[in-house]
Amino acid sequence: MRLGDLQTPALVVDAPVLERNLAEMARVLPGPRLRPHVKAHKCTALALRQSAHGHAAFTCATIREVEGMAAAGLGEDLLLANEVLDARRLGVLDAQVTVAVDSPETIAAARVGGVGRVLIDVNVGLPRCGCPPARAGELADLARRSGLQVRGVMGYEGHLMLLEGREEREHKTAEAMALLEAAHRDVGGEVVSAGGTGTYDVNVAATEIQAGSYALMDTAYQGLGLPFEPALFVLATVVSVSEKFAVADCGLKSLGMDHGNPSVEGAQVWFCSDEHLTFAPDSPVRVGDRIRVWPAHVDPTVAYHERLALVQDDQILEEWPVDLRGW
Amino acid sequence: MRLGDLQTPALVVDAPVLERNLAEMARVLPGPRLRPHVKAHKCTALALRQSAHGHAAFTCATIREVEGMAAAGLGEDLLLANEVLDARRLGVLDAQVTVAVDSPETIAAARVGGVGRVLIDVNVGLPRCGCPPARAGELADLARRSGLQVRGVMGYEGHLMLLEGREEREHKTAEAMALLEAAHRDVGGEVVSAGGTGTYDVNVAATEIQAGSYALMDTAYQGLGLPFEPALFVLATVVSVSEKFAVADCGLKSLGMDHGNPSVEGAQVWFCSDEHLTFAPDSPVRVGDRIRVWPAHVDPTVAYHERLALVQDDQILEEWPVDLRGW
Repeated sequence: MRLGDLQTPALVVDAPVLERNLAEMARVLPGPRLRPHVKAHKCTALALRQSAHGHAAFTCATIREVEGMAAAGLGEDLLLANEVLDARRLGVLDAQVTVAVDSPETIAAARVGGVGRVLIDVNVGLPRCGCPPARAGELADLARRSGLQVRGVMGYEGHLMLLEGREEREHKTAEAMALLEAAHRDVGGEVVSAGGTGTYDVNVAATEIQAGSYALMDTAYQGLGLPFEPALFVLATVVSVSEKFAVADCGLKSLGMDHGNPSVEGAQVWFCSDEHLTFAPDSPVRVGDRIRVWPAHVDPTVAYHERLALVQDDQILEEWPVDLRGW
Repeated sequence: MRLGDLQTPALVVDAPVLERNLAEMARVLPGPRLRPHVKAHKCTALALRQSAHGHAAFTCATIREVEGMAAAGLGEDLLLANEVLDARRLGVLDAQVTVAVDSPETIAAARVGGVGRVLIDVNVGLPRCGCPPARAGELADLARRSGLQVRGVMGYEGHLMLLEGREEREHKTAEAMALLEAAHRDVGGEVVSAGGTGTYDVNVAATEIQAGSYALMDTAYQGLGLPFEPALFVLATVVSVSEKFAVADCGLKSLGMDHGNPSVEGAQVWFCSDEHLTFAPDSPVRVGDRIRVWPAHVDPTVAYHERLALVQDDQILEEWPVDLRGW
């Protein structure tokens, strides 16, 4: 099957680019140094490729992602890097599951849910989950008293991912990680889990990096000079052409829009509607032409699609279900 | 089952509000005067409720929506109000399907795909699909020569939906519909299909109004003084609480973000991450509390969810699959 045979809109991954991204990351962060985050692609077939590159432990953002990874035989060491108040679906899985906790309530949920292992989630500057660093020790004590194994700490410096200057990124990551290391001294355990695609090679404090975006890459990372390339686009068909603009059949329900409009090479994107993209092409297009639409944010784009097509040049190699959607 | 029993994030529809919205619309636009647009809810169970209010003809935005409606026994008169280049999946359905066309290519696609009925889609001011009004007649001739039944015209004044002043909305809608009526004189047929929730009662030229948002309602319509109320929210759980903010378990993958951040009553929303909402509540919240998150745009929100819960007060009446997702 060829690219032209796909019904549109279709999520497409460039196989050689994906492979280069996976190989480059595995070179810099081999084996357990990387705990790939599956939220970025929500696809166990892609996780299997990451596993083939030597990474056996994975990061998940939702209970459904943990369940799906376990069902796909990738349950050797799954971290739900997120707080949950009802962990019962995790406790029954045939997999080794660790869950992030940052409060007595989430510790109680892990215990009640039968999840034996936790990381103490520490706030290192991003206004999101994580306890204050000074409180990590007492939460670890509480978790241990509750019969849980405390494997260490986790802290996501998400507010630093898109800093374009490498030195500033390095410096601020070190500051954030100093907070995490202090917490780690109080908590104990062998794991210091942190980082992401933007800090994968400047975060030297973490024992494992939770990068996910590197596989398919977001255009938002383009200013950082990272050695990963965008591998994912939405294939769309031009369904209508007017004098000053044309319309393709992808829109708000096939593209994550929180980072703004997608990009189309050789065209100005005017706006998206539910199922339409209105754009002004630099040179004429015809009804029936196919265009490649590059989403501004990969993760919420993938979450709209049931499957993705893995292509090389014009050839479809495989179709992979996006099987980790939902909650 | 009660609201508190739902796993979060969960899409929730307030049943009495939905019922009031459906009843009010059916009062003003009874029976065939309304052709409800299913793209707004992507749920055949909800379409069945609209059918119970007397509307037998429906509008769809995707082939999958047409297929799903046909499978649900709601195929009496389905309009795909969108251009497609491959109509073969439509031609095989056990339903009466009409498709919008605005070019020789889309007319050919209808013919090849075995769809016997078309509307000539006319651009009435929104930069999207639709032929120039002056070209509608020749396209209708071409369609008839191709053996297709031309049922009339369609033209969506989407650029006028959110004009807050009723008089301006009325005046500009009349101007847009003058274009459509001129095209209709050249095209013939009994159907003039147009309009939406914002113009449902000011568009007096259309023989049928394609409103969809009225059922669940977008907050964006709030300035218009329409008699429809928001009926849809995302139920989320507070998973982490800090001194200045709290975090709930819904985010970019459970909320359409093209209209910006969602709203939470009694709180300032700071930002959304993939699976998190960081917000500053006016009064303290606790880990485990449930909050109602009102999306800025309903349609792309619904498209992220597998199901919705229909509730009355705290009671879950039914769970409906969001079964018209995908393409």
